[in-house]
Amino acid sequence: MTDFAAPEFRARVERAQAAMAQADFDALFLTTEAEIRYFTGFRTLFWQSPTRPWFLIVPASGDPVAIIPSIGADLMAKTWISDIRTWPSPRPDDEGISLLLEALQGCARIAMPMGEEASLRMPPADIDRLRAGLNAEFADATPLIKRLRMVKSPAEIAHLRTICEIGSAAFARVPGLVQDGQPLAEAFRAFKIALLQEGAEEVPYLVGGAGPGGYGDVISPAGAVPLQNGDVLMLDTGATLAGYFCDFDRNFAIGHADQPARDAYRALWSATEAGLAAARPGASCADLFAAMTAELPGAQSAVGRFGHGLGMQLTEWPSIMPIDHTILEPGMVMTLEPSLVYGGGLMQVHEENILITDGAAELLTRRAAPDLPVI
Amino acid sequence: MTDFAAPEFRARVERAQAAMAQADFDALFLTTEAEIRYFTGFRTLFWQSPTRPWFLIVPASGDPVAIIPSIGADLMAKTWISDIRTWPSPRPDDEGISLLLEALQGCARIAMPMGEEASLRMPPADIDRLRAGLNAEFADATPLIKRLRMVKSPAEIAHLRTICEIGSAAFARVPGLVQDGQPLAEAFRAFKIALLQEGAEEVPYLVGGAGPGGYGDVISPAGAVPLQNGDVLMLDTGATLAGYFCDFDRNFAIGHADQPARDAYRALWSATEAGLAAARPGASCADLFAAMTAELPGAQSAVGRFGHGLGMQLTEWPSIMPIDHTILEPGMVMTLEPSLVYGGGLMQVHEENILITDGAAELLTRRAAPDLPVI
Repeated sequence: MTDFAAPEFRARVERAQAAMAQADFDALFLTTEAEIRYFTGFRTLFWQSPTRPWFLIVPASGDPVAIIPSIGADLMAKTWISDIRTWPSPRPDDEGISLLLEALQGCARIAMPMGEEASLRMPPADIDRLRAGLNAEFADATPLIKRLRMVKSPAEIAHLRTICEIGSAAFARVPGLVQDGQPLAEAFRAFKIALLQEGAEEVPYLVGGAGPGGYGDVISPAGAVPLQNGDVLMLDTGATLAGYFCDFDRNFAIGHADQPARDAYRALWSATEAGLAAARPGASCADLFAAMTAELPGAQSAVGRFGHGLGMQLTEWPSIMPIDHTILEPGMVMTLEPSLVYGGGLMQVHEENILITDGAAELLTRRAAPDLPVI
Repeated sequence: MTDFAAPEFRARVERAQAAMAQADFDALFLTTEAEIRYFTGFRTLFWQSPTRPWFLIVPASGDPVAIIPSIGADLMAKTWISDIRTWPSPRPDDEGISLLLEALQGCARIAMPMGEEASLRMPPADIDRLRAGLNAEFADATPLIKRLRMVKSPAEIAHLRTICEIGSAAFARVPGLVQDGQPLAEAFRAFKIALLQEGAEEVPYLVGGAGPGGYGDVISPAGAVPLQNGDVLMLDTGATLAGYFCDFDRNFAIGHADQPARDAYRALWSATEAGLAAARPGASCADLFAAMTAELPGAQSAVGRFGHGLGMQLTEWPSIMPIDHTILEPGMVMTLEPSLVYGGGLMQVHEENILITDGAAELLTRRAAPDLPVI
């Protein structure tokens, strides 16, 4: 496993343990892919299978303990983790619970992610069993994990920079990949192949839309409807390298673009410029939202936020919206994603990926053209 | 949304409601992608974003109620669901909870998946809030959901048959895609592109391994190590069409194959034959496991089970293993996946996808060659 060297993971654990000491947590209890990978480097597509739960315990001091199905022992042994405890899963009547009870015995305060963006990847009946079998208080680890993961290390930024460049290279090829008359699903397929050819490892996310003068929805799968002259096509991809995502989109007009589509594009491009200028340490997410909306007078947002954190997941904390007062810090990687509803229900979304630095934000993506490109 | 016509979903809800009446459930409460898609047809890659929870309530009678972030309203409105209640997410202090409290008020027994293979895709703190706000008992919906989803409808089987054929067509091209000296990651990339070219919509899962005479691990991502003469290469894919998975693998020798690799291959091929012969209605998963292990005398399993259900997820209930006494029924789609450890820690895994019918099982995948193919 060579996504990162061992010191990267040790540094993550040390930062976690310093925060745990402040919060008086005896252990972090983790069940989700990103959190387990963050501390161990354990990366596999096998999470696609819902059958088996996976667990990681980060103690108050010392190295993490992996409690995992035996099918994952070899791969976990390739990471820096040495304390690996396994059971032969599937074993529905004891999917790791007895091992967890043993490992967590004596902990008075156990923290697990319970708050915003969290989920629980284990049978809910089993967490009830675990809690009943321990004389422990369960606290919310979300603020701690969020704080850790929001600021990226130089090694994480290197992966993010590379995958954003791969995405940019694939987008540069779009004019040669899509055409009038092509079913949208075929355009998606051609673009996915281009992402792989440019060096993406996986393409877990490709959505978009197309329609006359604009599109109406940005999370639908592609259908068989052919692209036609006058369509605005949007492709939005989350491709990955070493388990790190880019997440950005590009808009194109097929054949020609009508004026409302051009105007919406230009307004969103300007909003992104304003976001770029405002994305400096010390500004809040709410400030960033305000800077972008100032370029869209009277406009209606389509998505509820104008960007978000980016890293091991397609979307991460924080959110660029009025109620998020997170302060930007160097090392945060974010998307700027202004959107606009216009022309009676049409939508347009722009998106770039940026790194917050000591000074001006660094674009990780090749900046979209200032005017709507026509293919 | 054209994955299925509306009557397919109505039939699923009716079967669920009949089982709910028997179990005295007033509502099913669902948070996970497969379960929400099963009843609604709502299919999107947007689940990649962990930011927003999504909810579906199946009442004791009447149509399901979708309680979802407003960003999904347009797509949900394209399904057969008409009662769609939304909130502007992200809104961390009320991510749908007040809408859920209103919709579930008056329910005495609410069932949600809590047992084997289940997880909870919402903040754990929010389920606690929900339970505290309702005067209801929460029961386990796992047996009900498992029972519903294990037996596939003709329309589901049609999708599964097509994606298995796409996977088979891509595997047929492998001899032209991989070669001695090629980094494993490049072989994976070429195969992913072939799957897309053959008609797969997504390739959420491609794992495998390669090494002299066999491989040692089947869930690792591909690395930069080049294939070499004498390697056994295994590719195992879960590609999708209309949200339905194939899940099967193929083994190849690069240049030449040594005798232990050939022998392991032949033994596993025979075990699969035995599984095919035994996979008839009335047999149990334990019977199927016994039939396959009879062809592998003294052998050590590598994975803990010899196959599993297949459908909307890469792996589904049941499991082909000694402790699973699920009885096979027509309409179940399964993988046969015998595995073997040999030669001091080497591993080989075979996998085919089958449909249980009234008589002999139907192969959905083109049967692997009886002897280890050499490329």
